[in-house]
Amino acid sequence: MIVAHKKDSVVLLVHCKDRKGIVARVAGFIHDFGGNILDSDHHTDEETNDFLMRMEFATEGLQIPVDDIPAAFAPVAKVFDMRYEVRPLSRRTRVGILVSKQDHCLADLLQRQRRDELPIDIPLIISNHDTCASWAELFKIPFMVCPVTKETKPQQEQQVLSLLKAQQVELVVMARYMQILSADFLAQVGCPVINIHHSFLPAFIGANPYRQAYERGVKIIGATAHYATEDLDEGPIIEQDVIRIGHRDTVEDLVRKGRDLEEIVLARAVRRHIERRVLVYGRKTVVFD
Amino acid sequence: MIVAHKKDSVVLLVHCKDRKGIVARVAGFIHDFGGNILDSDHHTDEETNDFLMRMEFATEGLQIPVDDIPAAFAPVAKVFDMRYEVRPLSRRTRVGILVSKQDHCLADLLQRQRRDELPIDIPLIISNHDTCASWAELFKIPFMVCPVTKETKPQQEQQVLSLLKAQQVELVVMARYMQILSADFLAQVGCPVINIHHSFLPAFIGANPYRQAYERGVKIIGATAHYATEDLDEGPIIEQDVIRIGHRDTVEDLVRKGRDLEEIVLARAVRRHIERRVLVYGRKTVVFD
Amino acid sequence: MIVAHKKDSVVLLVHCKDRKGIVARVAGFIHDFGGNILDSDHHTDEETNDFLMRMEFATEGLQIPVDDIPAAFAPVAKVFDMRYEVRPLSRRTRVGILVSKQDHCLADLLQRQRRDELPIDIPLIISNHDTCASWAELFKIPFMVCPVTKETKPQQEQQVLSLLKAQQVELVVMARYMQILSADFLAQVGCPVINIHHSFLPAFIGANPYRQAYERGVKIIGATAHYATEDLDEGPIIEQDVIRIGHRDTVEDLVRKGRDLEEIVLARAVRRHIERRVLVYGRKTVVFD
Amino acid sequence: MIVAHKKDSVVLLVHCKDRKGIVARVAGFIHDFGGNILDSDHHTDEETNDFLMRMEFATEGLQIPVDDIPAAFAPVAKVFDMRYEVRPLSRRTRVGILVSKQDHCLADLLQRQRRDELPIDIPLIISNHDTCASWAELFKIPFMVCPVTKETKPQQEQQVLSLLKAQQVELVVMARYMQILSADFLAQVGCPVINIHHSFLPAFIGANPYRQAYERGVKIIGATAHYATEDLDEGPIIEQDVIRIGHRDTVEDLVRKGRDLEEIVLARAVRRHIERRVLVYGRKTVVFD
Repeated sequence: MIVAHKKDSVVLLVHCKDRKGIVARVAGFIHDFGGNILDSDHHTDEETNDFLMRMEFATEGLQIPVDDIPAAFAPVAKVFDMRYEVRPLSRRTRVGILVSKQDHCLADLLQRQRRDELPIDIPLIISNHDTCASWAELFKIPFMVCPVTKETKPQQEQQVLSLLKAQQVELVVMARYMQILSADFLAQVGCPVINIHHSFLPAFIGANPYRQAYERGVKIIGATAHYATEDLDEGPIIEQDVIRIGHRDTVEDLVRKGRDLEEIVLARAVRRHIERRVLVYGRKTVVFD
Repeated sequence: MIVAHKKDSVVLLVHCKDRKGIVARVAGFIHDFGGNILDSDHHTDEETNDFLMRMEFATEGLQIPVDDIPAAFAPVAKVFDMRYEVRPLSRRTRVGILVSKQDHCLADLLQRQRRDELPIDIPLIISNHDTCASWAELFKIPFMVCPVTKETKPQQEQQVLSLLKAQQVELVVMARYMQILSADFLAQVGCPVINIHHSFLPAFIGANPYRQAYERGVKIIGATAHYATEDLDEGPIIEQDVIRIGHRDTVEDLVRKGRDLEEIVLARAVRRHIERRVLVYGRKTVVFD
Repeated sequence: MIVAHKKDSVVLLVHCKDRKGIVARVAGFIHDFGGNILDSDHHTDEETNDFLMRMEFATEGLQIPVDDIPAAFAPVAKVFDMRYEVRPLSRRTRVGILVSKQDHCLADLLQRQRRDELPIDIPLIISNHDTCASWAELFKIPFMVCPVTKETKPQQEQQVLSLLKAQQVELVVMARYMQILSADFLAQVGCPVINIHHSFLPAFIGANPYRQAYERGVKIIGATAHYATEDLDEGPIIEQDVIRIGHRDTVEDLVRKGRDLEEIVLARAVRRHIERRVLVYGRKTVVFD
Repeated sequence: MIVAHKKDSVVLLVHCKDRKGIVARVAGFIHDFGGNILDSDHHTDEETNDFLMRMEFATEGLQIPVDDIPAAFAPVAKVFDMRYEVRPLSRRTRVGILVSKQDHCLADLLQRQRRDELPIDIPLIISNHDTCASWAELFKIPFMVCPVTKETKPQQEQQVLSLLKAQQVELVVMARYMQILSADFLAQVGCPVINIHHSFLPAFIGANPYRQAYERGVKIIGATAHYATEDLDEGPIIEQDVIRIGHRDTVEDLVRKGRDLEEIVLARAVRRHIERRVLVYGRKTVVFD
């Protein structure tokens, strides 16, 4: 795992309109405080003139407490009218997981976390069913069942929100939650929400994508991890991957092959998010690998 | 190339509703006439009960002229109410190519044919522009320019049809032709038409799929070879492939990366078709690899 | 899962030298006893003249008990000097798993088995360490620790053999066992052994393949599932897959990315084996997909 | 094509041992002369402490002639003991191509160059056979035949060297040249040499890799583009890619499928080299995508 290897480091994410001198100014800022830049990457969208940058620097030798960096950087940010985030990678991200009946993505995330592939804390798993309770028990993570019906959805969402906020969750992962989160929920949750959709978006939006893929006779299926937005299946895409299928594959075979994709694509998206490699702008993401 | 290796062989393609005894009966038919089965594959769609089969057998030792096989097989076909085709693989398929301004798929097909990767004859290339004339000249293939406008489309299609029919074309390949063939044309052409679409269908149907993909921010793009039908981009898919893209890729980079995909996917589809590995049923194909 | 879908079926695997009439004769045999062929595939190696075939037929309507098929088929086999196997797919394969300290392949197989992706019974897990005991406990499978040192290896192997034989294991899976099984062990075990090697064989044979790959600077790494033979890493390959890496990936990143590959490649190999889709001849396999 | 899109730009490649402040100092240097950084990427090898960086900046507004940048940068380079290169991307790289009888990689490179995918000039094609002369003629590029035998190899290499030097070639591409260049040749040529090897290195080093792959029964084959060094097939790898094969594929099928890989992998490697995205250190490369 990268984090374990490197000495302690801080990520600075920056988004502004492109102008001359940004890289030099930000690199100078870090250097002036004694930081050693370990990794830097930036991207300029030539159509929109958006400038997006990620710099990772060592905290060793830093002449300023990490918690003071945001304030110290504020004047630089003001000059370029930047949106920015400062994140020490040693601070583990608090992740709340939403799950329904299918357990494979949940089990996969829990195993990756336990073997330190994903440096996250999981204070809470919430489900509308109790099917996955044994996984929570095995990994000793609090598990809350919040059943939902069409009628009780608003109240259930408020309940879920309270639980997440009580745990100061910084990221919500929909690990095959199978419920659509309302615009209200997304507006109130106060942190990013990552969803895994079981198709190669924008193909096969909506219900039963494996059945749709089967009927269309495609030769390849996919999975897509994206940030949830109020437009269903339209959120900014973080990661996609695909697998080849053939005419012998039934819908059940597609579901089976798709499970492997869903796990891997979701895990990659979560990993990139918590390493602060993803920046959203417009309907798109920049992923600094 | 498979064909060059094997002794001369015949493919029998069969499509009917599934019943007991089809494989035994057809294998028995071939054996009774002294044929040695080199390759056999079949598929039963359990949802629709369609039975689709491909058998390839050596002509060496065959006690019946190849041209008499269809008639000899007719009684068997009648018992099972089969649609069938008998094709000696040594008989090169006559292919007419339609092309517009972009030459990469055309040039690719011509080179594959010349190095005997594709055992086809190309009696004719037709284009609505003269851009690709030099390729035709280099490979010594007749090249016809049939310009088209919205107004002249019906007449132009009749002209194209006459040219193809005069050459007894058995397959039409749209090598980035960029024109939509009318339902009339497809009804009259009398042979299959393969098109290459520059997206991972059903994503990004219609115009400018690379621009659409860029704006949606997908992480993977694709290409799709399918039989042309009157429903645009809805024909049975023969082959698809994909390539990973990133945020640094402009629309022009997608076009460039896509060209490689288009060439390869189209060539694979043509190859499978001319080796009689593809059977269409409903909106789907079975591809016997 | 295929098995759940289809009515109960039997697989007949056949290996002999190629001659005219094999397909017709075997299909006729099945048909004569009232079997309906669901799937058939065969391959002739033109260099060696080996003929390898897999036929799957429904047991419904079969006019002979499944257990009598081998004897009934013996006369046909004798004519063609065939090696053959008859296997009802409803009979779950008994699999013994060998594992060392790393748990990911074991955990993956157990989860696939529980969700009925792999129709196998696992009567026994054996390890030279107790690290994976909790997985065995969770899935309620007997777990035996057989520690091994250089000196005690012969005795330990005898102990492992006794345990496997007592459970009438039909397949042994080395789920990252990290020990080399002796030629003696392989000669006595009496069933196939599948190993997962953490490289794209034949690249990086031997110890520390991820470190080797890192130092060579390859751009892609892989994993290979193969039958274990006395020549280390030289057994017939069943399945391989790969993933792209970059210069930012440390050895630890390769290990992490490789884990996903190892799980998937091993699971595919086991699945194909238990569905009797794999035939070994010489140093190679035929895999009927 | 990236180059066409961006305003004119310059790449600065840097290699030194890692120290604090390199990014800030180099970015400051560019900024001080009025350059706008369009793209920057760097990598630190934590095991060897090598620091490798690529910065691309716009020439528009630059207050110094491009040709004076190397001298202006020299003091910075001295401080950090840097190896560096300054390259305006508008300056097309002069590429000499070596080819033998097989034409596919040559034809592919020529077509990519003509459609401006590869912003290179090709002043010369050299072959030990005259098979590819028609391609040179079609693209109006001088074509020299330099036959070679075991006995005449030293003289032939001197002849090839003279021809390349006379054209001030900056990169030599072995487009399936099938001859091993001597250590002498490589020492004298004075520019990088890219070779395409038709296997997934380090698997199947040496002659007939497709035959080797066939006999080993691998399920995936590959191609590798690397810088030629005096240790055959051991040079730093620039790019690799793979394709799945099956038991039906003969050696000829592997050759056919491999051709597509060879073209694509070689073209990608050349593209990355001429865009100055590749830095060699030790036996490895860093490729800044």
